Amino acid sequence: MAPSYDIESLTDLITREVVSLISQKSDVHFCTVCGRVCDGHCISSHPDMARTFIAAGASRLSGKLGVGYVPTDLAGYIDHTLLKPEATADQIRQLCSEAIEYGFASVCVNPTWAPLAARLLAGAQPVVATVIGFPLGATLPDVKAYETLRAREEGATEFDMVINIGALKSKDFRLVERDIAGVVEAARGHVVKVIIETALLTDEEKVEACVIAKAAGADFVKTSTGFASKGATVEDVALMRRVVGADMGVKASGGIRSTQDAKAMIEAGATRIGASAGIKIVKGATS
Amino acid sequence: MAPSYDIESLTDLITREVVSLISQKSDVHFCTVCGRVCDGHCISSHPDMARTFIAAGASRLSGKLGVGYVPTDLAGYIDHTLLKPEATADQIRQLCSEAIEYGFASVCVNPTWAPLAARLLAGAQPVVATVIGFPLGATLPDVKAYETLRAREEGATEFDMVINIGALKSKDFRLVERDIAGVVEAARGHVVKVIIETALLTDEEKVEACVIAKAAGADFVKTSTGFASKGATVEDVALMRRVVGADMGVKASGGIRSTQDAKAMIEAGATRIGASAGIKIVKGATS
Repeated sequence: MAPSYDIESLTDLITREVVSLISQKSDVHFCTVCGRVCDGHCISSHPDMARTFIAAGASRLSGKLGVGYVPTDLAGYIDHTLLKPEATADQIRQLCSEAIEYGFASVCVNPTWAPLAARLLAGAQPVVATVIGFPLGATLPDVKAYETLRAREEGATEFDMVINIGALKSKDFRLVERDIAGVVEAARGHVVKVIIETALLTDEEKVEACVIAKAAGADFVKTSTGFASKGATVEDVALMRRVVGADMGVKASGGIRSTQDAKAMIEAGATRIGASAGIKIVKGATS
Repeated sequence: MAPSYDIESLTDLITREVVSLISQKSDVHFCTVCGRVCDGHCISSHPDMARTFIAAGASRLSGKLGVGYVPTDLAGYIDHTLLKPEATADQIRQLCSEAIEYGFASVCVNPTWAPLAARLLAGAQPVVATVIGFPLGATLPDVKAYETLRAREEGATEFDMVINIGALKSKDFRLVERDIAGVVEAARGHVVKVIIETALLTDEEKVEACVIAKAAGADFVKTSTGFASKGATVEDVALMRRVVGADMGVKASGGIRSTQDAKAMIEAGATRIGASAGIKIVKGATS
């Protein structure tokens, strides 16, 4: 029979286990959860843990964490986003101009546009967010760290990185953590958002990814790149909020096109919205 | 009236112009084509050049260049490709095993898998190809160069990089060239293939991209990442072959799933095929 877990301590338990797994020096490791030498597969061998999160329901926990408040002014929640590869300098100029006009939190652009966006937003309220290892997340850890460093030098102050999805699916949690930690270090105290690409993950993997992102010192977990088969869902946002607790941000992104979409995400626990439809969202567009 | 051009010297003419544009130190530049100070927009102000390439027909030139020969054994043409972000270590192992068994030219994998692929293919015929700035091409030039350097250190010897599509569309040809040249330099004589992502370009832009890739010292031009709305077409391969001439490779990739697809691409001028369906292709699958 699967052991039962106290829901409040489950995040701590998995977090401790992940931290233990990724910091262990010896090949012989007695698992703090199962008490056996589980060869780095402990979390996957305890799918009941993830299921406990998943089954416990979202709205109840959202309320418990003090999230679920839906503001009337959404602009400050929005990362005004333009990541398509064919975007031109003129389109980036327009994006920055709109971000200032509407008071969005940031513009989110590819690294090649970070210098231009930083010049255009100098002295203004919106900051420059950029993407790292985007959108596949499948490059080497130190390349993601270098990309972060260089984008920071060019004026970006928020970094939306994609996890190493293949490593997560191969249960190489240490690589997943090292990959994130390298970006956190290169960001030097600036905001790091970890895109877990929910469309490609099982619910168990979503839990694992969130726990690892938290253990690695990231500031946000984020649902989607916008380049996969689907984007944010209310269920995923609620699950992610449940796993990371109240002291991390959750960014919902991908397919959010209306005011009601955005409000539903915030109600489920999102503290940031990534969207190319930011203007429609603040103007009250319906889906 | 638009000036008329001798088709044979057109590549040289545009190449000289691009090289001139990207190497000029002064802001004042008298264009070698139009004779005016054309502010870096010369090629786009001469769309008749690109149109001459496009209108001249493909098969005739293919014959002229000595391409169009279709081999019976296709294996040596194929980059055996697995680039989806959720690929696992086991799938990469299988890919490498198949590449050895069938005698493919290479495996093409994301940088995170370059170390594993290099270990598995050590001493075997297929080499490790990896992707740079993939699939958006929208990061900073020195990040692409660094990614190349690191992937080379990890055992990759072919580098399929994506051009800066937004810079091309913004007519910033100098940035497009610098971006490619940085990867060529970091590759230290190894093979660099320049993905122009035909699905997102006009025919004029395809010509510009090929000319710039050639001027920057790349070894191949390549049609597609496989992540855009469409992949290789016979028409694009023929156009690209026409522009780069006989002394560069042309790689057709994206949506090539059968023997007849592959043969049509080779007949049009392709010297390499990127495909996840390599085994089907060599086994004679029909579309």
